Amino acid sequence: MNTQEYMIALGQQARQAASQMASADTGQKNRALLAMAAALDAARPRLEQANAEDMQAGRAKGLDAAMLDRLELTSARIDNMIEGLHQVAALADPIGGITGMNYRPSGIQVGKMRVPLGVIGIIYESRPNVTAEAASLCIKSGNATILRGGSEALKSNQAIAECIISGLREAGLPETAVQVVATTDREAVGQLISMPDYVDVIVPRGGKGLIERIAKDARVPVIKHLDGVCHVYIDRAADKVKAINIALNAKTHRYGTCNTMETLLVHNEQASAVLPDLAERYQASGVELRGCPETLKLLPLIKAADESDWSTEYLAPVLAIKVVSSLEQAIQHINQYGSHHTDAIVTESYTDARVFLRAVDSSSVIVNASTRFADGFEYGLGAEIGISTDKIHARGPVGLEGLTSEKYVVLGDGHVRQ
Amino acid sequence: MNTQEYMIALGQQARQAASQMASADTGQKNRALLAMAAALDAARPRLEQANAEDMQAGRAKGLDAAMLDRLELTSARIDNMIEGLHQVAALADPIGGITGMNYRPSGIQVGKMRVPLGVIGIIYESRPNVTAEAASLCIKSGNATILRGGSEALKSNQAIAECIISGLREAGLPETAVQVVATTDREAVGQLISMPDYVDVIVPRGGKGLIERIAKDARVPVIKHLDGVCHVYIDRAADKVKAINIALNAKTHRYGTCNTMETLLVHNEQASAVLPDLAERYQASGVELRGCPETLKLLPLIKAADESDWSTEYLAPVLAIKVVSSLEQAIQHINQYGSHHTDAIVTESYTDARVFLRAVDSSSVIVNASTRFADGFEYGLGAEIGISTDKIHARGPVGLEGLTSEKYVVLGDGHVRQ
Repeated sequence: MNTQEYMIALGQQARQAASQMASADTGQKNRALLAMAAALDAARPRLEQANAEDMQAGRAKGLDAAMLDRLELTSARIDNMIEGLHQVAALADPIGGITGMNYRPSGIQVGKMRVPLGVIGIIYESRPNVTAEAASLCIKSGNATILRGGSEALKSNQAIAECIISGLREAGLPETAVQVVATTDREAVGQLISMPDYVDVIVPRGGKGLIERIAKDARVPVIKHLDGVCHVYIDRAADKVKAINIALNAKTHRYGTCNTMETLLVHNEQASAVLPDLAERYQASGVELRGCPETLKLLPLIKAADESDWSTEYLAPVLAIKVVSSLEQAIQHINQYGSHHTDAIVTESYTDARVFLRAVDSSSVIVNASTRFADGFEYGLGAEIGISTDKIHARGPVGLEGLTSEKYVVLGDGHVRQ
Repeated sequence: MNTQEYMIALGQQARQAASQMASADTGQKNRALLAMAAALDAARPRLEQANAEDMQAGRAKGLDAAMLDRLELTSARIDNMIEGLHQVAALADPIGGITGMNYRPSGIQVGKMRVPLGVIGIIYESRPNVTAEAASLCIKSGNATILRGGSEALKSNQAIAECIISGLREAGLPETAVQVVATTDREAVGQLISMPDYVDVIVPRGGKGLIERIAKDARVPVIKHLDGVCHVYIDRAADKVKAINIALNAKTHRYGTCNTMETLLVHNEQASAVLPDLAERYQASGVELRGCPETLKLLPLIKAADESDWSTEYLAPVLAIKVVSSLEQAIQHINQYGSHHTDAIVTESYTDARVFLRAVDSSSVIVNASTRFADGFEYGLGAEIGISTDKIHARGPVGLEGLTSEKYVVLGDGHVRQ
C-alpha cells in the first residue's frame, strides 16, 4: 500500500467511526477518557522508553535545544496529559443539546441540535502530549480524528496512541475513532488535507510556515491560527497604575505566546506620564524598546521603530511603541497593522471603552485587562484545541464547541406545506 | 485597467466600506433599506426598460424559456423586491449583540459580541431580483458586498444597483458598501474568489456545476449548497394518514426545489398498507415511480430503480421508492446516499423519533412534517441568503446570522494574568 492508499484507508475508517461516535452517549465517551488516563499512567515506562528513543534520534539528527525541549515527555508532562484527560471528561457534553425550540405560525416546532463535525484532521509538530490532548477533545465532541504528529515524535506518539486505543476499546467505542498516522512520509499531509470525502476539517498547530502552507493547499476547511500581533492602547482617560500594570503584564508575563503584546499605543496626553516609568521597568526586565518619532522625544536612548515593526510578531523581549493623537487613530492602527488576534484598551472612559469594543476587529477585544487572558482556560472553555484568527466558523480560543456544528430539528404532527 | 486590476480596486473599496458598515447603527441601516425600496418604486420605468433590453439580448442569444423566465423582471417581481427590503428592515439587527457575559474566577468578565464577517462576494446566475435581496441581507448584517450576477442580466442588475446606491447615499452609508461587478469578463469570478485580503467569504447561488467549480477554485471560504437528495421515511410505527399526506406534499408541492423529496423509504410492515394508495395518487399527479425489488412486488407496473437512482436529485416529477426492513437500515441509507440536506421520518414511536433525530446527519432532520418546510422563512429566519449543505460555519437555511461571526469581549478593572 502506498502513502496515498494508506491515507485513504485511514479516511474511510475514520468516516465509519465518526457515525458511531456521533451517537455515542456521554457516559461512554467519559469512560473512554478515564480509561485512557489510567492506561497512560500504567504505561509510563513504555512511554518513557519510546520518548527516549525519539530524543536520541533527535539529538543524532541535530535538532536544536528548543525542539528537543518540546519533544521531551517528562514525568510532569505525562502527569499533565493524565490530568487533561480527567478535565475533558469533567466538561459538559456539547453534543445533542437542543436550543431555540420554538413554534412557528405553521404549527411546526423548529430548533437546533448540536452535532459533531465528523472527521477532524490534526497536524502538529514536535510536542507528543498534543496527541492525547487533541484526541480527548475530538472524542468528547463526538468526532473521529486522524492525528499527524511530527516525524521526530513518531515513537512517542505511537506509544500514546496505544493507550488511547485501549481506552476506546474498554468503553466499547470504535478503535479507529482516533488514528495516528504511522508513516513519516510527507505526502501523508498532502493527502490528509485533500480528502473532502473523508475529512471535514483540518486543524494545523505549529509554526506559521506550516499553517500557511496547509491553508493554501487544503481542499477542506481549515481552522487556523496565524499571527498574534497584539496591542495595548493606553487611552487619554487611562488610569496610570492600571495602564502600567497591564502594559507590563501583557509584554513580560511570557514572551513567546501569541497573546503577548507586540506594540504599545499611547495617547499623546498620557505619553509623558507613563512612558518614562514604563520604559525603566521594561528595561529592567531586559525588553528592547523601539519607538516612533514622538516616543523617541520622550525616550531618546531607545531604537527607532521602522514601518515593519508595526506588523511584526516578535515572540521575544522586544516591544514597539507608538504615540497616537486620538482613540480613532489607535483603532485604525490596530485594524490596519494588527493580526486581528487580541487587543486591549486601558481607559476609565465609558464612551471610549464602548467605541473600542465595537470598532476593533479582533477575535478578543479587552477593556482594562491584560491581553494574556486570551486563552480557552481563562475564558472558561475548559480546554482549547487552538486559537482561531479566522472569522468563519470559530474565532478566538476554540474549545469543544468549535469542533461541532448545529443541525435544524423540526417537530410536526403531520404538517404539510400549504 | 484590466479585469484583475478592476476587481482588486472593487475589493479595496469594499474592505474600506466594510469597516464603516461594521460601526453603522441599526437606524441608519434600516433607513438605507427603506430608501432603496422607495428608489426601486420610483425607478420602475427605468428597471423595466433595462430588463427589456436584457430580455431582447437573451432572446437573440437563444436563451431557453426557463432562463428567460428567471431573467424577467415583472411588475410583481419588482413588488417582491420592494416588499423584501421592507421585511429585512423590520428584522432584528444581529450586530453588536452580546451573549454569555459571565465572571471568571480571575475576576474578568467574558462574553461574545456578534460582528459582521466583513466583505461577502455573491455570485449568482440570471435572476436580477437576487441583486436587491442579497444586498439587503449584507447591509443589515453590517457587511460590504461585491455582487457578480449573470452576464445576461447585466443591465437589469445595474439599474437595481443604482437604486441601492442611492439608498446608501441617502442614509449616509458608503456607496461602495454594495458594488455590482460591471464587466461580463469571466475572469472577474476567478479574481473575486482569489482575494483573501479583500473578500472574507463567497456565497455562490445557482446550478451545481457553477457551485462545484467555485468551491474547487476558491481561495476564501465558501458557503455553499450542492445537492438536495431528500428523503421521507415511513416508519413501522407511522400513522397512515400522516404518512400519505407528508409523502405527497414532500414530492408534489413543488418539483424543482432543493427540499423536495427524491427518495421515499418505507418500512416493510407498512409497505402494503401505504404504497398502493400512494402510488395511485402520485400517478394521478403525473409522478413517475421507480422502485426497488420489494417495491416492484407491490407495484409491478412501475419502473425498476437502479443504483444511481438512490443518489439522484431529479428536480422533476420522478420518485425513487425503497422498502427497508428497519429504522437502522433507513438511517444508513439516508446517511450513505442522501446529500445531508433535509430528511424526515413519519412515526408515532417516541423512541424511533429520538433515534432518527440524533443519527441522521443532515442540515434539517424532521419528524412528522414535510421536507418542504426546510426554508429560512418557514424556520423564522425572516430572510435567507441560501441553504448550506456544509457543516462548517453555517448549516441549513442561512439568514442574517450566517453572515456574521462573534468576537470575545473581555471587561476587567486593571486585571493582569498571574
